[in-house]
Amino acid sequence: MSSARPRNVRVSLGERSYPVRIGTGLLDGLGELVARRTGAHHAVLITVPGVGRRYGARALRSLRAAGLRCSRVTVPDGDASKNLAQAAELYAALLAQRADRGSALVALGGGMVGDLTGYVAATFLRGIPFVQVPTTVLAMVDASVGGKTGVNLPEGKNLVGAFHQPAAVLADVSTLRSLPARERAAGFAEVVKAASIWDSSFFARLERRAAPLLRLEEGALIPTLERAVRIKAEVVGRDEREQDLRMLLNFGHSMGHAVETLEGYRGLLHGEAVSIGMVYASRLSETLGVAEAGIATRLTALCTSLGLPVELPGYSRLAYRKALGVDKKRRDDRIHYVVLERIGAARTQALTPAEIVALVPRGGAGPKPGGRRADSRGGTRYLRGK
Amino acid sequence: MSSARPRNVRVSLGERSYPVRIGTGLLDGLGELVARRTGAHHAVLITVPGVGRRYGARALRSLRAAGLRCSRVTVPDGDASKNLAQAAELYAALLAQRADRGSALVALGGGMVGDLTGYVAATFLRGIPFVQVPTTVLAMVDASVGGKTGVNLPEGKNLVGAFHQPAAVLADVSTLRSLPARERAAGFAEVVKAASIWDSSFFARLERRAAPLLRLEEGALIPTLERAVRIKAEVVGRDEREQDLRMLLNFGHSMGHAVETLEGYRGLLHGEAVSIGMVYASRLSETLGVAEAGIATRLTALCTSLGLPVELPGYSRLAYRKALGVDKKRRDDRIHYVVLERIGAARTQALTPAEIVALVPRGGAGPKPGGRRADSRGGTRYLRGK
Repeated sequence: MSSARPRNVRVSLGERSYPVRIGTGLLDGLGELVARRTGAHHAVLITVPGVGRRYGARALRSLRAAGLRCSRVTVPDGDASKNLAQAAELYAALLAQRADRGSALVALGGGMVGDLTGYVAATFLRGIPFVQVPTTVLAMVDASVGGKTGVNLPEGKNLVGAFHQPAAVLADVSTLRSLPARERAAGFAEVVKAASIWDSSFFARLERRAAPLLRLEEGALIPTLERAVRIKAEVVGRDEREQDLRMLLNFGHSMGHAVETLEGYRGLLHGEAVSIGMVYASRLSETLGVAEAGIATRLTALCTSLGLPVELPGYSRLAYRKALGVDKKRRDDRIHYVVLERIGAARTQALTPAEIVALVPRGGAGPKPGGRRADSRGGTRYLRGK
Repeated sequence: MSSARPRNVRVSLGERSYPVRIGTGLLDGLGELVARRTGAHHAVLITVPGVGRRYGARALRSLRAAGLRCSRVTVPDGDASKNLAQAAELYAALLAQRADRGSALVALGGGMVGDLTGYVAATFLRGIPFVQVPTTVLAMVDASVGGKTGVNLPEGKNLVGAFHQPAAVLADVSTLRSLPARERAAGFAEVVKAASIWDSSFFARLERRAAPLLRLEEGALIPTLERAVRIKAEVVGRDEREQDLRMLLNFGHSMGHAVETLEGYRGLLHGEAVSIGMVYASRLSETLGVAEAGIATRLTALCTSLGLPVELPGYSRLAYRKALGVDKKRRDDRIHYVVLERIGAARTQALTPAEIVALVPRGGAGPKPGGRRADSRGGTRYLRGK
């Protein structure tokens, strides 16, 4: 089927441009890609236990076949590994394996592995190359484009990091088959985000394709991932450092991060938090009079059809305000909050945390974390005002 | 005296270009400079106890007068503070002071403060601006140009870091008066390095000016610092990422770092280690037949007249080889070692650690660390071969 052929998206960043390859069965070409794109003589594969068990040997075989000395480092699974202590352990592991400026890191796994590996690559010896092999939908469409790397601090997510572009991204969709259904679904949140801020006809295609996407049918999946990557690459290529345009990629992320902070990075997957954040933002956009009516309903329906949660966990307004306060996009007391004008068109609006939490139900007696039920009442049960 | 007027050197790096201002009594202009160059609304002054006691209040007064909210963080003195744990403490301090992307860091102190502050600025929230206020000769001519920031690992110096250009550098030479004589002298090692690799007439001027420089006479000092900064800015401006040309700035640093590693970052100041490394490199250059005869004698004499040590601490060849082995400039087994062809002209040569240590006296019964005596016997007592 021709729509399942591999696709190449070029992320254009001058001399730091790189290709994102999306297709099925690409893992065997990893070694050739690493050798060609990095010029390295040594590769360190960084992965997590489950992914490493499934795909590690195949990745290493391909790296060795390309003439690279290589080894594997496994880090514990979960976002809790994305911290400074784990980065320090990786530096020590790299030195123990005699890594130098002729070494490249290969991140095999989801967004956590990519962010952590990218951060270590950005800072080890002031920067060595790395290649991403994302194995989740989320990492394929989001973490692999933009050059954002980083780790969490106890005070919040991604508070320490660096911009460091990968030398290449290899997205082998056959690795998605082993993902739990919940993680597959969560990944599509960033696809929905890309469509929401940029491309209404892509949004309409997603509305029609939710079922085949969740089944990972390649004819639907590969062009969908390609379109989402292209949108992000277009935004990032125009504006490598986070400014104006790139801020639109934060759609759903201010409240999404607040939710994750409140949950202590447990309970909800990142994509689930983003889904909640996007639906919240669409409601707020309508309430503020920025958006045309009906977008919250469409966004809620699409997220729900993709199996994503759409309701805020039941914390108080004060808790959400505080959680927004350590968000790194804060500048003075206002946050550049991303609002939708309509499906496919977004902009930022400077809002205080208090203004942002205006739609959080008073009293904090809302639904429990992880709830997947769509809010069939639209925005009507939410109170307005401070 | 007109030669003591303030000088401005522009480091040309496209949109990341920045000015280095060199003169006396400039500290009172800090706040205006930070506000103009960074656009920040908040500044965090990072310093060490002694420097902070002398100049901290004046710096903060200037920052406040420019309308900036500001605060001070003091880190323990010494290279031992330049590590990941101290960086983590600084991240926490910044968050406690509600730092955000509208904050700027100000590094007030020597190279350690600049490297650590620069690294934290490079990585906090994926990068915020910083301004350097170097208070040592070394930091004025070396650490302030090139954008290298970083911290040490237990395994070696500067193994973790990032390239992050300051928004501006303010070198107030009046702050040098409080430096111990030994630290003043050590700073001139990097000035000698700049002259050695790039400018023979500047080298000749240094040979004539050693005494007034050590007395910090502004008529000699300010143009000397300016010339050294211009050389480094020229090298770095042509080649922002460390490649070919920029490698020449490593003259004296391979063995210098090895010495520092062996000494555990104690005992010798960085400039002293570099002096030893440069004299060693000049001898090796002659031994290898790369350099014209006599350069080792001139370099030894100049370093000695500036009060710098020139002899290797008495470790074994094996110890030096091992210490070179964790040097981050290693690629495979060869090091791009910087040799001099003549005074003012350098190039790199790929050498193994074994080849580099060929002039280390056999048996390791050499002079003790910190020895300042010039080697009046030139290179003759050193054995050749592996």
